[in-house]
Amino acid sequence: MKLISVDDHVFEHPRVWLDRLPHGLQDRGPRIVETDDGSERWLLEGELVSHLEVNMGLSASAGLDWHERSFEPLRFDQMLPGTYDPVARLKDMDEDGVWAQTCFPTFARFAGVRFLTMKDKALALLCVKAYNDFILDEWCAAAPHRYIPLIILPLWDVDLSALEIERCGPRGARAITFPDATFPIGLPSIYTGEWDRVFSAAAEHELVLCMHFGSSGLEPAVDPLAPQAVTTSLFGITLYSTMATWVMSPVFHRHPTLKIAFSEGGIGWWPFALMRMDTVWEHYRFYNLERQIDKETRPSDVVRSNVYGCFIDDPLGVKLRHDIGVRNIMWESDYPHADSLWPKSRENAQRVFADVPDQEVRQIVETNARRVFRFP
Amino acid sequence: MKLISVDDHVFEHPRVWLDRLPHGLQDRGPRIVETDDGSERWLLEGELVSHLEVNMGLSASAGLDWHERSFEPLRFDQMLPGTYDPVARLKDMDEDGVWAQTCFPTFARFAGVRFLTMKDKALALLCVKAYNDFILDEWCAAAPHRYIPLIILPLWDVDLSALEIERCGPRGARAITFPDATFPIGLPSIYTGEWDRVFSAAAEHELVLCMHFGSSGLEPAVDPLAPQAVTTSLFGITLYSTMATWVMSPVFHRHPTLKIAFSEGGIGWWPFALMRMDTVWEHYRFYNLERQIDKETRPSDVVRSNVYGCFIDDPLGVKLRHDIGVRNIMWESDYPHADSLWPKSRENAQRVFADVPDQEVRQIVETNARRVFRFP
Repeated sequence: MKLISVDDHVFEHPRVWLDRLPHGLQDRGPRIVETDDGSERWLLEGELVSHLEVNMGLSASAGLDWHERSFEPLRFDQMLPGTYDPVARLKDMDEDGVWAQTCFPTFARFAGVRFLTMKDKALALLCVKAYNDFILDEWCAAAPHRYIPLIILPLWDVDLSALEIERCGPRGARAITFPDATFPIGLPSIYTGEWDRVFSAAAEHELVLCMHFGSSGLEPAVDPLAPQAVTTSLFGITLYSTMATWVMSPVFHRHPTLKIAFSEGGIGWWPFALMRMDTVWEHYRFYNLERQIDKETRPSDVVRSNVYGCFIDDPLGVKLRHDIGVRNIMWESDYPHADSLWPKSRENAQRVFADVPDQEVRQIVETNARRVFRFP
Repeated sequence: MKLISVDDHVFEHPRVWLDRLPHGLQDRGPRIVETDDGSERWLLEGELVSHLEVNMGLSASAGLDWHERSFEPLRFDQMLPGTYDPVARLKDMDEDGVWAQTCFPTFARFAGVRFLTMKDKALALLCVKAYNDFILDEWCAAAPHRYIPLIILPLWDVDLSALEIERCGPRGARAITFPDATFPIGLPSIYTGEWDRVFSAAAEHELVLCMHFGSSGLEPAVDPLAPQAVTTSLFGITLYSTMATWVMSPVFHRHPTLKIAFSEGGIGWWPFALMRMDTVWEHYRFYNLERQIDKETRPSDVVRSNVYGCFIDDPLGVKLRHDIGVRNIMWESDYPHADSLWPKSRENAQRVFADVPDQEVRQIVETNARRVFRFP
């Protein structure tokens, strides 16, 4: 079996935008500067970007012993070359036993929201296009059979977003990274219908909307004195909120072929979510305040036809795979993040799948991703 | 088997505080007034309290058809008498096949936080004591073998809170309702040690800390245009945050006999939470920023010795009861809230437990609650 991972991360190298923005704009676009303390930092529109958002140690700590990990910034020469080089990455994937990956942005942020807050929106659009050109023409082109192309959108404008889908779809894009919630970043609700042009374009070009937890900044509210382990324990569960929000919205009735895929959320909580949503729907669909809810289709049926999940290491989810739907489960390696098991992803998968029939393992680690992302 | 429910709700009747506050203070304490539109509203310190917090229809809708339910305020004469009368309640419990209940406040709010924001803190303390006297001397005294006494605390002062535990413990209190998080209501974090006197008193008097979801106002962040069904689908999952926050804190190491019980959170998500917390702990316990974490005891072991859950209707949780720990599961009827299955709680329980051995059913519906709440 060839393992296909649907959630990994690319560190954009220093020349991604320098090589692609027009002369005269390169200085205001994203570029790396070296600070007095010897760290490398991204600069955008004259402002330094926090390393906690882009190059902190935990984001590129695959393979490091847990004692060596930290929130401190990393220089490119302190990272594994595979974090920013698509050819070096292939060697790391081979070592990990992973055939293909789907890479989310880092500097541009999981859902490309970096460019949403730029002052110069003309420049911001060029930055989005430059990222997508980098992903299509440089990163994925280095090994087209081993990278699933995932693009970002100029989220501040639905018409421009639809145009970007129409531009990149025919060039081989297979997925779009979309925020796991719109309200935290000031974007229109999916209940308004304002996104319809984007969803229609995504459905027409058969691009999956991939939603990484945390991509909108939506985080579980946690005691401010609690250690990071508490927040990390809750990673992913915000996608339950995303699931309920999408499944009880009119989006999938209007766009029945649209697919969404959750990234790094785990799947062990899905059976509870499906049960709970069905129970609530059973009562609330006739409830007088709930006119927007589809009264005919159970939420769990909407999930099974339109929603996909994935996991790194979730023995419970694997045990409950039939409560979820084997066709809805994919697998991820999360390279090079702290949660990744690299270089033992395949070894760990063998352990997790020890009691699962081969045919189902193949669906989860390979053929579901090939079907959903049209990656034969 | 006698069904013991560990999560139900009392509507404080109009004379709870009028009968107990000293003359001269009754006017500023909680009392019911009739407004021009014919509704009954609580008045406290001269201000009307929103009916959405206390007497909206969904809070007293047990037995109503779903088409009849709403957020509109209810007058006492529109509610089942069992909502506010402990003798009438017994008949409703008999009809429901429920032997005993554990009632949370309504006007005083789930964790008694109503009095936390009062201007006159001397009056606030009297209001807390009056509520506890009502629960101990009137509500539970109406049928001591059928009501588990649950008290509230003057949460703004840990010394007063400890004194209230010492006052009510010997009078038969069995549990304390405590907020599911402290930071949303401006109280000290459980990581500071400031609560130690309270936790010591609770442990010494063997009172369980009951945490109802939403009792601190902590709610899952949801798209503002999403229907109520989305929020309702997520009810309970905030207790996963509570679980991680408590289990990774030093509280149970300092107070190893202290027990906490989650109310209305469901249990079907517990196996995922236990697995995820153990996985994170396995890495993060040695992580340099995480000095507060117990490095010896797995979070799931802390849960099994100190944390209890309950459910109304959670077939998945019942199926996974051995992944949770049968000793940690209790049952609830949630009378008279919208989620209650009254008057079919027992009938529904029979369906949910159809495939479970009698001995385990008895633990879940009866003997665990008798042991945890010392209610023989």
